[in-house]
Amino acid sequence: MASQIDITVAPFKGLPAWVLSKLRPVAIEKIQAVHDWVETECIPAESIMKAQLAKDRWHTPPLMKQLREKAKARGLFNLFLPHHFPESPGLTNLEYACCAEIMGRVYWAAQTMNCHAPETGNIELLAKYANDAQKKQWLQPLLNGDFSSAYSMTEPEVASSDATTIGIRMEKVGDEYIINGRKIFGNVNWNPEMQLYILMGCTDPDNKNPWNRHSMLLVPADTPGLTIVRNLSIMGYDHAPEGHGEYVYQNVRIPASNVILGPGRAFEIAQGRLGPGRIHHCMRLIGQCERAYEFALIRATDERKKPRGRLIGDFDSNIERLAQMRLEIDALRLVVFNAADTMDTYGNKAGRYVIAQSKILVPDKIAHIIDECMQFYGGQGLTQHTPLPEMWTYARFVRLADGPDAAHRHQVGRDQLKGAAQVRKRHERYYLIAKELKRLYGLEEELAAECTWEYLDVSAIKSNL
Amino acid sequence: MASQIDITVAPFKGLPAWVLSKLRPVAIEKIQAVHDWVETECIPAESIMKAQLAKDRWHTPPLMKQLREKAKARGLFNLFLPHHFPESPGLTNLEYACCAEIMGRVYWAAQTMNCHAPETGNIELLAKYANDAQKKQWLQPLLNGDFSSAYSMTEPEVASSDATTIGIRMEKVGDEYIINGRKIFGNVNWNPEMQLYILMGCTDPDNKNPWNRHSMLLVPADTPGLTIVRNLSIMGYDHAPEGHGEYVYQNVRIPASNVILGPGRAFEIAQGRLGPGRIHHCMRLIGQCERAYEFALIRATDERKKPRGRLIGDFDSNIERLAQMRLEIDALRLVVFNAADTMDTYGNKAGRYVIAQSKILVPDKIAHIIDECMQFYGGQGLTQHTPLPEMWTYARFVRLADGPDAAHRHQVGRDQLKGAAQVRKRHERYYLIAKELKRLYGLEEELAAECTWEYLDVSAIKSNL
Amino acid sequence: MASQIDITVAPFKGLPAWVLSKLRPVAIEKIQAVHDWVETECIPAESIMKAQLAKDRWHTPPLMKQLREKAKARGLFNLFLPHHFPESPGLTNLEYACCAEIMGRVYWAAQTMNCHAPETGNIELLAKYANDAQKKQWLQPLLNGDFSSAYSMTEPEVASSDATTIGIRMEKVGDEYIINGRKIFGNVNWNPEMQLYILMGCTDPDNKNPWNRHSMLLVPADTPGLTIVRNLSIMGYDHAPEGHGEYVYQNVRIPASNVILGPGRAFEIAQGRLGPGRIHHCMRLIGQCERAYEFALIRATDERKKPRGRLIGDFDSNIERLAQMRLEIDALRLVVFNAADTMDTYGNKAGRYVIAQSKILVPDKIAHIIDECMQFYGGQGLTQHTPLPEMWTYARFVRLADGPDAAHRHQVGRDQLKGAAQVRKRHERYYLIAKELKRLYGLEEELAAECTWEYLDVSAIKSNL
Amino acid sequence: MASQIDITVAPFKGLPAWVLSKLRPVAIEKIQAVHDWVETECIPAESIMKAQLAKDRWHTPPLMKQLREKAKARGLFNLFLPHHFPESPGLTNLEYACCAEIMGRVYWAAQTMNCHAPETGNIELLAKYANDAQKKQWLQPLLNGDFSSAYSMTEPEVASSDATTIGIRMEKVGDEYIINGRKIFGNVNWNPEMQLYILMGCTDPDNKNPWNRHSMLLVPADTPGLTIVRNLSIMGYDHAPEGHGEYVYQNVRIPASNVILGPGRAFEIAQGRLGPGRIHHCMRLIGQCERAYEFALIRATDERKKPRGRLIGDFDSNIERLAQMRLEIDALRLVVFNAADTMDTYGNKAGRYVIAQSKILVPDKIAHIIDECMQFYGGQGLTQHTPLPEMWTYARFVRLADGPDAAHRHQVGRDQLKGAAQVRKRHERYYLIAKELKRLYGLEEELAAECTWEYLDVSAIKSNL
Repeated sequence: MASQIDITVAPFKGLPAWVLSKLRPVAIEKIQAVHDWVETECIPAESIMKAQLAKDRWHTPPLMKQLREKAKARGLFNLFLPHHFPESPGLTNLEYACCAEIMGRVYWAAQTMNCHAPETGNIELLAKYANDAQKKQWLQPLLNGDFSSAYSMTEPEVASSDATTIGIRMEKVGDEYIINGRKIFGNVNWNPEMQLYILMGCTDPDNKNPWNRHSMLLVPADTPGLTIVRNLSIMGYDHAPEGHGEYVYQNVRIPASNVILGPGRAFEIAQGRLGPGRIHHCMRLIGQCERAYEFALIRATDERKKPRGRLIGDFDSNIERLAQMRLEIDALRLVVFNAADTMDTYGNKAGRYVIAQSKILVPDKIAHIIDECMQFYGGQGLTQHTPLPEMWTYARFVRLADGPDAAHRHQVGRDQLKGAAQVRKRHERYYLIAKELKRLYGLEEELAAECTWEYLDVSAIKSNL
Repeated sequence: MASQIDITVAPFKGLPAWVLSKLRPVAIEKIQAVHDWVETECIPAESIMKAQLAKDRWHTPPLMKQLREKAKARGLFNLFLPHHFPESPGLTNLEYACCAEIMGRVYWAAQTMNCHAPETGNIELLAKYANDAQKKQWLQPLLNGDFSSAYSMTEPEVASSDATTIGIRMEKVGDEYIINGRKIFGNVNWNPEMQLYILMGCTDPDNKNPWNRHSMLLVPADTPGLTIVRNLSIMGYDHAPEGHGEYVYQNVRIPASNVILGPGRAFEIAQGRLGPGRIHHCMRLIGQCERAYEFALIRATDERKKPRGRLIGDFDSNIERLAQMRLEIDALRLVVFNAADTMDTYGNKAGRYVIAQSKILVPDKIAHIIDECMQFYGGQGLTQHTPLPEMWTYARFVRLADGPDAAHRHQVGRDQLKGAAQVRKRHERYYLIAKELKRLYGLEEELAAECTWEYLDVSAIKSNL
Repeated sequence: MASQIDITVAPFKGLPAWVLSKLRPVAIEKIQAVHDWVETECIPAESIMKAQLAKDRWHTPPLMKQLREKAKARGLFNLFLPHHFPESPGLTNLEYACCAEIMGRVYWAAQTMNCHAPETGNIELLAKYANDAQKKQWLQPLLNGDFSSAYSMTEPEVASSDATTIGIRMEKVGDEYIINGRKIFGNVNWNPEMQLYILMGCTDPDNKNPWNRHSMLLVPADTPGLTIVRNLSIMGYDHAPEGHGEYVYQNVRIPASNVILGPGRAFEIAQGRLGPGRIHHCMRLIGQCERAYEFALIRATDERKKPRGRLIGDFDSNIERLAQMRLEIDALRLVVFNAADTMDTYGNKAGRYVIAQSKILVPDKIAHIIDECMQFYGGQGLTQHTPLPEMWTYARFVRLADGPDAAHRHQVGRDQLKGAAQVRKRHERYYLIAKELKRLYGLEEELAAECTWEYLDVSAIKSNL
Repeated sequence: MASQIDITVAPFKGLPAWVLSKLRPVAIEKIQAVHDWVETECIPAESIMKAQLAKDRWHTPPLMKQLREKAKARGLFNLFLPHHFPESPGLTNLEYACCAEIMGRVYWAAQTMNCHAPETGNIELLAKYANDAQKKQWLQPLLNGDFSSAYSMTEPEVASSDATTIGIRMEKVGDEYIINGRKIFGNVNWNPEMQLYILMGCTDPDNKNPWNRHSMLLVPADTPGLTIVRNLSIMGYDHAPEGHGEYVYQNVRIPASNVILGPGRAFEIAQGRLGPGRIHHCMRLIGQCERAYEFALIRATDERKKPRGRLIGDFDSNIERLAQMRLEIDALRLVVFNAADTMDTYGNKAGRYVIAQSKILVPDKIAHIIDECMQFYGGQGLTQHTPLPEMWTYARFVRLADGPDAAHRHQVGRDQLKGAAQVRKRHERYYLIAKELKRLYGLEEELAAECTWEYLDVSAIKSNL
């Protein structure tokens, strides 16, 4: 397959050999198309998008609408949806990862292709768990890009990284749920495009099983009683026109038929939502970081900037920095590609570890690399003259989105410790064989000294003999 | 001295014993007064200041004006100006460092006491180098807080970290200088309080000595021909109402009497400006970081936030993080205090190394610690609900202000290498004594083996015998 | 293929899906055999090997000889030699990487399978560049494990990371080369098994092309005039019985027919030697680190060690540490596998970047992880009671073997900078499209502001229009 | 005081101004004498000491004995013992810190001045807690340097970082204690100079208060029943002739009069032992690191080593590395000096935090810096040709000696969390003042929004009004 494509130029340059070997023609075509799209329609249009948004902060800019129509027409919509869904355009996770990296080069490029968060997660959720009526009413328009949606889980008053503590009350009264409480971090409905919240709340607080207390509900954005207190800025950025809202629910009434999958099944759904969606951010971060790196290269070779008479890139310290960044970006890409491929091969559930690996390693390191790229630009690096500050902020944000990395590390660490017993057993076997060998080789003396300091509790093994 | 004060509570708690032992009664009184001021008048007023600024972005908020008047009346103005200046309120750099840390707890607190950048550097510059007429016209009102000033050095088209590349043209025509060119990073004159630029530019481009080509000029902010193109945002923050401007000078005419110290002496002045002013930022960053740390402590013990049923501060990983942050903040404070004390003892020039040490170590590490404190807050940590994002941004900014840390590291490293010859000479002496000892102790065999791999070029030493 | 094997247990557990999918039956069989070999014959025999070496430090221990015979009989010899060599047992680099990781679990396991440095590099070198007579005399016995060899390049008096500075003199006199000079770091010939040095030296010092001055010579270890001054210890370890020698060559005479490939072609050969050989170390380091990690897991769950009443692995800080180590080891494995696969796909030369990537990222990080594992053991971690100190030392050594990482980073960084011009060109294209778009969207105002601070030198682009 | 001394040369160069200002004439004289001693008698004698030890590994080398006599005659013995002890030569901790740094330049220099671990801790312990008879028998000869002693606390079978788990049994039978159990890490008694163990063991295992179960006992090294199993190597080094033993106590009988202070008071003593002794290591590490740094400087300017035609120190990356190392060493020195000064001012107990600060920050960072210095030397850096590998090993060891840094961090972190309640209270006060201010400034709207996301639990505060 790879033989048809030119691996010395973008978008295929830099892809690992094993990834190239797995790309089907359909994917190669899409990757090229996404590349062309971003290079021609998105990157050069950044200032236009910014200018339109500056004028009308809380509406989708006309340019975005035009680009979305155009991208849809070109068959670039919903590429993220894995091929096993009937609604999918047919890419594997690995193939999509190649596309997603390219999308990441511009903050809003994924949105032009309907591949942006939280739509991707929501669409996958609905495709997986919604009933036909719900699909018709909500999934189809989302796939079509008719309006946008939000996912509403985090709450201000609890430690949302432990979702069992989520407390918003959804009380069943007749055919309706009456909702009271507060939420944070779903997109704001100041933008009229925003029409749906997928809300996780507590329907059965007294259930003995804490994993069965919560339900997932479809909440139209204009339902009376739902108020936005303010938009949450992220490191000073408002992220308009989507934003991140702070909400109050006051006697909000939603038909019981809007429950997804059934009452008490929120965790089942949330678990399923944590597949590919969770690494889309990481895929895009790689692309974003590649672009930051381009900025660093440009500054390093800027003839106008010659401290002490030398190009910035003539300083060995900067040469080493550029090398280290390149090496680390490429290593992170391998992590993300491997996560995508693992999901393709074994499914989302088996991919839990590699997803966590991406989630923990990528945003933290990428933020650090972008920070270094900013440093190449001196004072200018922090200003609006490059997209670097927004890139850093996005990476910093993703380090917290879907849970802080420490929480994920805990999960990984606990899983490792579960395997310790088996490791210990194997080492006890080593010990027993070694004992035999010592006898065999006449190393009695050493056997005698054995009563001393062992990393294994030898007495325990002996008793097992 | 320390016996009079209670070292178990703020503001004296946490001060190193040796620092306490050097505080004179006048300083103890001022430190207490600054502490009370910040605790009572500044921290609780943060939301008021923010609200007033939100309504009128490019004017000094009424609250700031009131607080400045009040602080001046309380004798809290200009504390930064070292005691040897006639205009000084009388503190040493070390004593002021204690005050500055406290000021740092609120982004704008230093301004209420006329101790903010760039005023501090400008005031010291004028106190040191201006003539009497210039002092009367510009220094007195600045000390009195009648208007504000900016320092204008950085340029968009050169590598300003090497100031000899600065290119803005200041041509002497008759009794005037005619200025043409561009500048960045001085405060914007959208705020009418902003009335003076101290401008570094090129008056004698053909001078053989590159250190004599530039002059420092007093430029009234409303001079015709001086235009602001835009405000530069820093990581998305506009830093209103002071801001950071991008300027065009087009045939700006300034009387030659506005030159400070004399034509061609800009570097002499710039050098002198790099004394205490350069570490005020670091002093304040420590205080800011202490406040960020308080936020982390509060979150760590927030009864509402219990992932997996435990306080965030019950997790050993967070206990270790809180410890490490505490240890590092305190170590950085020692660095800054030592820099201040070294300047007090040996003067600004001899303090060059310790100033660089603060400049290089403090902002980088403090930014990292504040980032960690944000992480304690999960998603909320990045929003406007705490001052943490602005704190991080300020630390990040200071890492570049007055030059990127790499440039300073280069200077330090080159100085170290200058000392290498002397070190080598000492090691050659070791070698010669060792040779004698080997003979003395009958270690001929080892002497014979000497012809092999030595970290010193032994043959070169032999010839020196 | 992967369907036949049980991926939930060693040695296939932990292998990335894409790697598993590329393993051919022959490889699966070998990997399993190597795994069984190391688990049963090597790990439990560590103390025997140590005891034999303690008694007779500079001879190959009897156990090693027995194991080598046994491994050869089982078809486990020379697995490293890639399948395209006639002498190869048939594995690809990727397949061998799986074996090498397992070998790495015991410091000397690779040697039992004739897959240890420097034999691997030497064998590949001879297979590639030696003539038939040389192959018969030297390659065959090496493949057969009859004796061992060393590679002799580094010199005490020059900066060997830049091999053009290598100075040992090899003067052609008649049919012989007469060698004078000093070398360091080839294995010592105190062990009689050690019979061959592949020596890089200077045959044509006056050649204008510095890349044509050197030749590669086959030097029998017992040639008169070749003296070992001492063994070089590595962090205190003597690495017996192979060691690292410090040599003097005094009028050593070698027949001219011992030159490999021809005079002046040393760099051509050295270049070719830098293929797979250079990442074998990295492959083994991963395996070694996996074993260090097992030690950490065992200590973390040691019932005898309960500070403050809790298992070491009950502390969240240690849970997070175990997670982070796991994540990073697995990410490094992806880097090494990708390097092997890239060489398989595109050849060694095209693999230069990925080889450097392994070389730079792996040893440094692995040393850090092993250090962390030692820390889990408290004081015991530094003693002879676990192999951890030797593991750390090996990783530290590999960071310098084949050149310090800084030298490799420089190469990578310079290559990146070579690509900067093309990146700049692309950005100029963005700029020109953006300009058109601005006109199209009526953003004249912004166009006017364009004269200000651009990260690109806009004036230069304009002139290109 | 500082005026008498030349601060531009060693040993006073590099001392912070505030430290210089505190040095009394007696200290200045001693510092100079220690400097001259180390420069002339120790550094050049390193190879002699090594050679003597190589010949007779487990006896104190004759050179060491000669140097000790000479140093004692010069009044350089026991400088570490703080001035308030009658046996003290009269220095403060701060003054001694200056000496200790110089001693650290050679691994064994402190021993020539009877200022080495564990003698220092043992001498202070006996001076503080022993009765007159014990002092006469043990303290006097130790002060006189007649024999050496060890401190025996760590055990192989428990987590000794939590000393309450220490289990060696010391049973009172008549006038004797009968000891059974195992110990690790005290010096080995293979060296006949080694004559005394201060042993911590369990005399009252059933005492309800875990802090009263243990006693401290004086154990002559030749007591029957006390066997050494082996010496523990540290990263491969045997640390002869002192070493680190692994012991078995089998019915070892010691007169009850050998208990120090009284039965059950081991923790009281251990606590007291943790004063200055704990930072002597850190002081010496700074000196050691300074010497490592000198080696780096020498390599950086070695005319024989010119990769790519440039001195190693001509590479900007190395210039920056040298700068960063210099800055960090100097910052760590400030930490250690401050710890010493704090103990001088407030006593050892109040110094607990600053001692922990040194213990946690210094060894870890110093090991890292020495590692970097080794890297400057390429392969040679790991060999016996410089003392760098032993230096690294010592720093690594100190990171674990007196407990792993994580344990100390936990203590510091827990202490910080104890202060959180007070911080919270202060923030609640800010909130209440802010509320008043909002009313005052007519910011009702913002007051209304107050019901949303606060970092404080506002409802709790309200109820407190």
